[in-house]
Amino acid sequence: MPGPLTIWTYDWVPAGPRGFVRDLRLCWAAEEAGLAYDVRTVPFEDRETNHLDRQPFGQVPFLTDDAVTLFESGAGLLHLARKSETLMPRDAAGEAQTLQWVIAALNSIEMVTVPWWFLKMSGQQDGGLTGWMDKRLARLETILSERDWLATDRFTVADLLMADVLRVPALRAHGERPATEAYIARLTARPAFRKAHADQIARFAAAD
Amino acid sequence: MPGPLTIWTYDWVPAGPRGFVRDLRLCWAAEEAGLAYDVRTVPFEDRETNHLDRQPFGQVPFLTDDAVTLFESGAGLLHLARKSETLMPRDAAGEAQTLQWVIAALNSIEMVTVPWWFLKMSGQQDGGLTGWMDKRLARLETILSERDWLATDRFTVADLLMADVLRVPALRAHGERPATEAYIARLTARPAFRKAHADQIARFAAAD
Repeated sequence: MPGPLTIWTYDWVPAGPRGFVRDLRLCWAAEEAGLAYDVRTVPFEDRETNHLDRQPFGQVPFLTDDAVTLFESGAGLLHLARKSETLMPRDAAGEAQTLQWVIAALNSIEMVTVPWWFLKMSGQQDGGLTGWMDKRLARLETILSERDWLATDRFTVADLLMADVLRVPALRAHGERPATEAYIARLTARPAFRKAHADQIARFAAAD
Repeated sequence: MPGPLTIWTYDWVPAGPRGFVRDLRLCWAAEEAGLAYDVRTVPFEDRETNHLDRQPFGQVPFLTDDAVTLFESGAGLLHLARKSETLMPRDAAGEAQTLQWVIAALNSIEMVTVPWWFLKMSGQQDGGLTGWMDKRLARLETILSERDWLATDRFTVADLLMADVLRVPALRAHGERPATEAYIARLTARPAFRKAHADQIARFAAAD
């Protein structure tokens, strides 16, 4: 059913994840790009079964945009990036650099940080994931100490995603990575992040 | 430096990973699409430092294609998919479906299967990852029991990637997922997979 850009999230979440639910990635990107959007919701209760036709793992976010329905926040970001040069340069080399760093955030960084966090939060042994993660984060620290942005020489959706991946409190509290900290601080100081973040907090609070 | 499509991998790997090094994903895609390509190598020895300028985590593959240099196999696949309708439909809805399932393979499935495999191979406790992974794989099993292809009603690069993610022997040996097994068998029977797989085995064997 054709319609404007709509970002779908849960109708409520507990206090812990507020400010970190991944619809924020899409809202942040839409704010950066100046794209009009609505936020709509599916029930948090029974989330493992109530919207599997739109998100096959019962998660959020997903987005609808005219004929397009998309799940996976990374896919949503790449979809929005195709609509706005603010999020991704239009030349082949700039687009490739953005794409590779978006995928690196999802498949080289989150692939270690999310399981690490999962094991840590559930109070279990990390089984060696910390060493693996530390190597990846050290490489990123070196890169971020040498330049301000991951792709080309300007802000792209790759920075938006990587900063969102890295700003998890347990991760920031683990080890010393000053260039990474400065990067997170710079990205999360952007008005578009602050708006998307405040909106998410307010939306879930209103549902209490 | 402009040039034809080149897929970069290691000059040698031990027996264990042969047939599973991720350059295979890109070679498989190029074979499906009928794209001419060369395979070139970087040293496996000192891989953690010898090609960081081209792959910031010391891994392979990466690709070069005229003005484009790209690391992350997922990014390389999306780059190749933009060049060939065989890999991804050209309509917005078909492209979105392909994109979401490519990202799902990387960020919903591999994000659990790769750390699970890492802990299993190093003989360590999984700390609860098995339960998380089993839920994701069960959802995929349901989906693959209802249809032949993940995106639209035809083969796309999303199937290529998902089959490569799922065909890890330790994963196939874990649990019973008949629809998933049939899917892996169907995908890995494709001539393009068989060629890319045989080429990788032969290339590394020749370097012994």
